[in-house]
Amino acid sequence: MRMCVLGGDGYCGWATALYLSRRGHEVAIIDNYLRRQWDFELGTQTLTPILPLNDRLRIWQEITGLSIELMVGDVTDYSFVSTAFADFQPDAVIHFAEQRAAPYSMIDQKHAVFTQVNNVVGTLNVLFAMREFCPECHLVKLGTMGEYGTPNIDIEEGYIRVEHNGRSDVLPYPKQPGSFYHLSKVHDSHNIMFACKIWELRATDLNQGVVYGTVTDETALDEGLINRFDYDDVFGTVLNRFCIQAACGHPLTVYGEGGQTRGFLDIRDTVRCIELACLNPANAGECRVFNQFTEQFSVLELAQMVQEASRKMGMEVEIDHLPSPRVEAQHHYYNAKHSKLIDLGLRPHYLGESLLDSLLNITVKYQDRVDISQFLPQVNWKSPRNRRTRLATVPAATASS
Amino acid sequence: MRMCVLGGDGYCGWATALYLSRRGHEVAIIDNYLRRQWDFELGTQTLTPILPLNDRLRIWQEITGLSIELMVGDVTDYSFVSTAFADFQPDAVIHFAEQRAAPYSMIDQKHAVFTQVNNVVGTLNVLFAMREFCPECHLVKLGTMGEYGTPNIDIEEGYIRVEHNGRSDVLPYPKQPGSFYHLSKVHDSHNIMFACKIWELRATDLNQGVVYGTVTDETALDEGLINRFDYDDVFGTVLNRFCIQAACGHPLTVYGEGGQTRGFLDIRDTVRCIELACLNPANAGECRVFNQFTEQFSVLELAQMVQEASRKMGMEVEIDHLPSPRVEAQHHYYNAKHSKLIDLGLRPHYLGESLLDSLLNITVKYQDRVDISQFLPQVNWKSPRNRRTRLATVPAATASS
Repeated sequence: MRMCVLGGDGYCGWATALYLSRRGHEVAIIDNYLRRQWDFELGTQTLTPILPLNDRLRIWQEITGLSIELMVGDVTDYSFVSTAFADFQPDAVIHFAEQRAAPYSMIDQKHAVFTQVNNVVGTLNVLFAMREFCPECHLVKLGTMGEYGTPNIDIEEGYIRVEHNGRSDVLPYPKQPGSFYHLSKVHDSHNIMFACKIWELRATDLNQGVVYGTVTDETALDEGLINRFDYDDVFGTVLNRFCIQAACGHPLTVYGEGGQTRGFLDIRDTVRCIELACLNPANAGECRVFNQFTEQFSVLELAQMVQEASRKMGMEVEIDHLPSPRVEAQHHYYNAKHSKLIDLGLRPHYLGESLLDSLLNITVKYQDRVDISQFLPQVNWKSPRNRRTRLATVPAATASS
Repeated sequence: MRMCVLGGDGYCGWATALYLSRRGHEVAIIDNYLRRQWDFELGTQTLTPILPLNDRLRIWQEITGLSIELMVGDVTDYSFVSTAFADFQPDAVIHFAEQRAAPYSMIDQKHAVFTQVNNVVGTLNVLFAMREFCPECHLVKLGTMGEYGTPNIDIEEGYIRVEHNGRSDVLPYPKQPGSFYHLSKVHDSHNIMFACKIWELRATDLNQGVVYGTVTDETALDEGLINRFDYDDVFGTVLNRFCIQAACGHPLTVYGEGGQTRGFLDIRDTVRCIELACLNPANAGECRVFNQFTEQFSVLELAQMVQEASRKMGMEVEIDHLPSPRVEAQHHYYNAKHSKLIDLGLRPHYLGESLLDSLLNITVKYQDRVDISQFLPQVNWKSPRNRRTRLATVPAATASS
């Protein structure tokens, strides 16, 4: 199949592009390098030393003989997206090209507005360009489990049958997102459902859980193919951050009591889920929703698992409870369905000791690149303007939240 | 109370500003005259000859001795909104300042993106500016009944109790909006709910039905205060268009079979609803939703009522069924609750013969200003690019949809 990976220089996008390429698909990456720009803005960097995308792609070709096309541009530029789709004629568009960090969207008005405009306009452009230039193409869009929030009922996959006053209907699952970023994904979901309805486009909205891990079979082929490993308070996801904190002997920073429960998955399952969705496309006019995660954990459970795995490697780490910078329930019901990708053939990698060992080994390997000032949360949900003092490389201890 | 009316030069905004001013409130209008600009863009004009806003406000002061403050600017400009709120210190912000026409949002990619960015960014800015400069202020936001779509169950006011797998929760009512405009209002609703939750703002989201009528007690005081009367296929609402078609002896243009059922209200009820919401503000942290309409009609029922009222005035009009340019169910269940504003004291003006007489009289009075090329729908939901040939003042009969 011809697959266009939007945001293919990012964490999930890079792993996905390589996986699909090795699986024999014709892959093109679209990226505008904004993820690298945010590292400059925030004064952060990935733990792992990633190469420029051109170098990565050259190495990929040298090692595998496979080539991945690169189109550099911004999906918020409609003429660019139009030309790209008209030229490449994708069978599937895999859309990772969004600002994906909740804390980034909560910094201040500018960052909230940027996140929503960037994400909503990019997705609208993708939908219009599909309609005009490749109407049979299948959109595989990355959403997030965070769109649902934490309702007191089971979370279904996108839709729910509601019985009310003696009548019944299947309706979009009610959403209660917890940041301006998560809201942008809810806006996208509504826009996609509508476009499928009026234009008979086909789409799969993948509500992904929190991704962990760095190594995939493809990135392991050469150090030049290594993927990002983000551990800062803005773009870092929680399990990655815990592993790196453990490797540095820093306490694991749990927000609040750590009862926040979420869905998680291994990045090796992310890439497989994407291919499964592409190989089994939605029907014309259909907007499917799959919940893309494999296990549920509370944040405290994760911390305890990392603590235990570290102990076996001879590292003693503490667990610190910091005041949560977010506005979220710290104890809540959470039971989210996630059977549709399993039905399509996903065989999950579960988070176990061996995986934690390998994650911890990576953090130990690159620990001389760690900037511990990146650990502490500086973006507070309750403030309309967060000062970003670390942006000027002030030590974290003096930074305000 | 100190009340800031965003979009106070528009149809609902102007009537509301005058009503609140005469009721003794301190009123400021914020407007950027974009509504007048859209008339230039579309080659349309209001049936009624409206004056420039400065002249309207001067006449208002001369007749009533009451002054309304004017701040000219765009709510998508955060520094402007910030300064306006910081200076005026409103008790209530009444937010009409959005692109409000579904067909306008469906013209093409540019108009869809403009509508969503304009509306979403404006509302985000209002929320951030309230949080920073008047956190006790009450946001009264105009949403639309079109956010709900036409589910096969009763439509509640914003929230619904869902029983599922033996558990229960009260959740935001699932939304199925039918245009990129209606989607923008859904995006706003989610953003407002979240801002109330994290910042303890207070908001009332008024999901308004289709408004009809032009004359209010205040605009009737002088012809220089006359309100807009839009009847074109983009900004005109259906009952206004039927009345003007009847006055011109043009067939009433019903889209499809006309079974589309919606909530309607008189503009004299709109202004009263706004004041009722302001006088009974939401609590801190509360995002209330009221469904703001008074009666349900199908489009065909409205056409038949106008036909009957016309006959009594000696005018015979036909009903034409045009292919619907929209993607919408033409027969559907529709039962939307609307008791909360009644509970606060609203006494509705119902659509009856006398009102139809007065609407028809206005259209007869100004019939020499009618441009019949504005009647026919030119924006088709299924097309990603609608040519807007009328924009070059080509007669409607040759225009493409």
